[in-house]
Amino acid sequence: MKERLYLFDTTLRDGQQTPGVDFGLEDKLLIARMLDDLGVDYVEGGYPGANPTDTAFFGQRRTRRAKFTAFGMTKRAGRSVENDPGVAALLDARADAICFVAKSWDYHVRVALGCTNEENLEGVAQSVEAAARAGREAMLDCEHFFDGYKANRNYALACARTAWEAGARWVVLCDTNGGTMPEEVARIVADVASVVPGSHLGIHAHNDTGQAVANSLAAVRAGARQIQGTLNGIGERCGNADLVTLIPTLMLKADYRERFELGVTQEALAGITHLSRAFDEILNRAPNRQAPYVGSSAFATKAGIHASAIVKEPETYEHVPPETVGNRRRVLVSDQSGKSNLLSELARLGIPVDRHDERLDGLLSEIKEREAQGYAYEGADASLELLVRRRLGSVPAFFRVESFRVNVERRFDAMGRLKTVSEAVVKVDVGGDVRMSVSEGNGPVNALDRALRKDLGELNAWIDDLELADYKVRILNGGTEAVTRVLIESRDGEGNRWMTVGVSSNIIDASFEALIDAITFKLLKASTGEAMPAAAE
Amino acid sequence: MKERLYLFDTTLRDGQQTPGVDFGLEDKLLIARMLDDLGVDYVEGGYPGANPTDTAFFGQRRTRRAKFTAFGMTKRAGRSVENDPGVAALLDARADAICFVAKSWDYHVRVALGCTNEENLEGVAQSVEAAARAGREAMLDCEHFFDGYKANRNYALACARTAWEAGARWVVLCDTNGGTMPEEVARIVADVASVVPGSHLGIHAHNDTGQAVANSLAAVRAGARQIQGTLNGIGERCGNADLVTLIPTLMLKADYRERFELGVTQEALAGITHLSRAFDEILNRAPNRQAPYVGSSAFATKAGIHASAIVKEPETYEHVPPETVGNRRRVLVSDQSGKSNLLSELARLGIPVDRHDERLDGLLSEIKEREAQGYAYEGADASLELLVRRRLGSVPAFFRVESFRVNVERRFDAMGRLKTVSEAVVKVDVGGDVRMSVSEGNGPVNALDRALRKDLGELNAWIDDLELADYKVRILNGGTEAVTRVLIESRDGEGNRWMTVGVSSNIIDASFEALIDAITFKLLKASTGEAMPAAAE
Repeated sequence: MKERLYLFDTTLRDGQQTPGVDFGLEDKLLIARMLDDLGVDYVEGGYPGANPTDTAFFGQRRTRRAKFTAFGMTKRAGRSVENDPGVAALLDARADAICFVAKSWDYHVRVALGCTNEENLEGVAQSVEAAARAGREAMLDCEHFFDGYKANRNYALACARTAWEAGARWVVLCDTNGGTMPEEVARIVADVASVVPGSHLGIHAHNDTGQAVANSLAAVRAGARQIQGTLNGIGERCGNADLVTLIPTLMLKADYRERFELGVTQEALAGITHLSRAFDEILNRAPNRQAPYVGSSAFATKAGIHASAIVKEPETYEHVPPETVGNRRRVLVSDQSGKSNLLSELARLGIPVDRHDERLDGLLSEIKEREAQGYAYEGADASLELLVRRRLGSVPAFFRVESFRVNVERRFDAMGRLKTVSEAVVKVDVGGDVRMSVSEGNGPVNALDRALRKDLGELNAWIDDLELADYKVRILNGGTEAVTRVLIESRDGEGNRWMTVGVSSNIIDASFEALIDAITFKLLKASTGEAMPAAAE
Repeated sequence: MKERLYLFDTTLRDGQQTPGVDFGLEDKLLIARMLDDLGVDYVEGGYPGANPTDTAFFGQRRTRRAKFTAFGMTKRAGRSVENDPGVAALLDARADAICFVAKSWDYHVRVALGCTNEENLEGVAQSVEAAARAGREAMLDCEHFFDGYKANRNYALACARTAWEAGARWVVLCDTNGGTMPEEVARIVADVASVVPGSHLGIHAHNDTGQAVANSLAAVRAGARQIQGTLNGIGERCGNADLVTLIPTLMLKADYRERFELGVTQEALAGITHLSRAFDEILNRAPNRQAPYVGSSAFATKAGIHASAIVKEPETYEHVPPETVGNRRRVLVSDQSGKSNLLSELARLGIPVDRHDERLDGLLSEIKEREAQGYAYEGADASLELLVRRRLGSVPAFFRVESFRVNVERRFDAMGRLKTVSEAVVKVDVGGDVRMSVSEGNGPVNALDRALRKDLGELNAWIDDLELADYKVRILNGGTEAVTRVLIESRDGEGNRWMTVGVSSNIIDASFEALIDAITFKLLKASTGEAMPAAAE
């Protein structure tokens, strides 16, 4: 018989405290739906009454399954609960649950609130009772609980007990400053559990020492049964406990899997990689490639010493199967890799090569040599595929660029305004037919890209929907003079994406090389009818 | 009496396994120096014999204080230690210490190595003995130790014991797959300590469940005295234990501070924020703003329930004082605190401004607006100083560029070889005298740089020794269209270095802006006789 663990998401409340994050109403609606589908038990939507967005968001219930939860302060000292506008805003909110926050460190009660310890406890009791009377599930976030406990154990415990006795479903112990160590969390939670049953205790951990996940798990082992956290660990300062890391751990690791169950299904777990990346899209930031479980590198191997074995026996090299979290295995080709890395990479790319093909050694040393020059094929699948297939003789010469010229000019225009114009001219031979094209762009690379694709004769039908999706530049210190590496991500109308690389001491040359690969790759796939790489998630 | 804890850095070896990371020789030299200055005890430089970069890197000793450590496999079964080329490469390396890696999971011995358990133990013993005979400090990384222990406790312990009995200074328990939980680490380390003394045990943790830091600390509490990790937690898959997080925790948190001492001084600790960001610069990636201790948000608070109290009593809201790690408190949104930040920044740059100067508000909003556009003044002191002094009216118009033109042309030369030529023409007004200069370069930015500095009349005497030391490009997703940020580091003949920034949708424009600032800054300092900034470390 497994025990139920409850997940409380505070992405929309504590996550909103992340510097640079500011959710609008539409964002909140979308994220609430994602969380509901994931299967968390509580979605804390914000702080109704504190700002117009949150007040509007609580104008109706925004979740189907999860309990929609409003956050706010307990009543202030010196006024009745009926006359406290903050509590009134919470009771007006269309929420299933109300999470009150109250100080549990006597020092802060005195200095920040300026009231007596007793008045603070009264505020807790009366606010919790008011929420329960109004038919809401009530809970209390005990702010600064761990620091408060260390300063005055009896008062911190009195706060927890007061909430519990007043009818709170949950008493949540918050490591507000984020500096508590897992062993302290375990010891203190176990002590609190002598006053409030563990099945009514929650943990709210921050990542200021990089241990928000470990602190949350330590609290569970010590008896707590509710975990508060956020998507991708966003939150004030260093963030909150990352639910995207915690959920797979709780569902896949034996110690937890065998003792506990969550409201998250195995199917929802298999969507968590997608969820995490979609959430980064909403935040408009690049996903963390090294994120536990869901990062694009989480199941990637570069090492030659492991690569050959991983392909044979993945389960002894991977702490969980990548499919369970919707991620995938990647064996990267790199400077350090051997033939088995290359073979498994070719298999993944769908290029049939016999493992005894004599050309493999030459190919491997060419890749190593090019990587020594600055090429990085682990990020540029399409260029790698072209390199391999050129060696194996299966890439037609679709077109040949005879020359190009790029011009960037800054001058004052007739109105006396500074103006910079970029223009590119390209001379290209397409099946014996020499064509010249010229184009402007918002920079030299953009101009060159446009000119290159402007007129390739009949080939244009295949690349009409090609677009440059991203462009990255890295300057490498390749010895005496700087070398520039350019990575280009392209996409087409069907949502396919592919990466190409170019290297040169001249940034325009490097960009040109990556652009040519990008176009050639698309032409190759279109002309042979081969499938493009899977669309990025 | 405190116990000594030893730090073993593997940034240059396991960190090199990070997808997308590929250190050249120059990078390795620079990073080794940074680590040496930080005060780690061991710098693992790489895998001599495995690739040309690492072999060259081990051509001489690269650290002054830290033990310079080579990594490689124990001898293979079926050959003597004298006839093993891998071991020979390790013994040839100019290293103080050798870290061998060996399987400690019997399953992998059989499947991946294809030798007997006994042969594997013999390889461990003979390799460790050979290193010790050659005068090197020997240690063993027990690969897959925790999974191996769970599968066959006796064999895992036999591997550890064999290395210890053969004379290894350290036996390092590696959580190679990264999936072990802190409580398992604690239990297993304590058991191993019954066979090998804890003062000779190390921990090598990975972050696959987000607990590499917690696992490292759990091992220390269970008796281990060496911690392996990397700068900013880079490493294979989800990365290694982050030394930048662990060091402040070990030095500042009471449970560790009172029991242990490290080779890191308080002064070096105060440089760790700078170190972490400088390392990200080498990786050419944006620092993680939410990184524990060192992130720009680690001590930031958004206006809200805490902000006003923090200013009054920071020590009750911050788990450690930000100055101890060289970071700083930020209270966001509040214009007042923005102003005091700016004032302290100006004081640091040595720009005298009265705190009641009315122009400060305008300056602050200009900086905020430019940062919103993509400028990053944290890394570009010289551009910040110019911006401020232009506002305050103390930068002369040394010269004015009326127009420029940059041309990049690729064509076949008379010999039929492809050739790319970059040329720039600049028209500049120096004190009413209009001059035109033309120059070639190995790329458009280099050509523009040369043309700009070719003839500035009398000003040339002041900038003759100016050189472009580094050039970095980052593409920002600034909304609807990509924005390019260019950072240029310049140096002069006296070893002074200064950084400038330019931002534009056109990379040439952005580079031009940073180049103009670089020249102007040098002219300003030379013409006023002011000291240049201290040479960068």
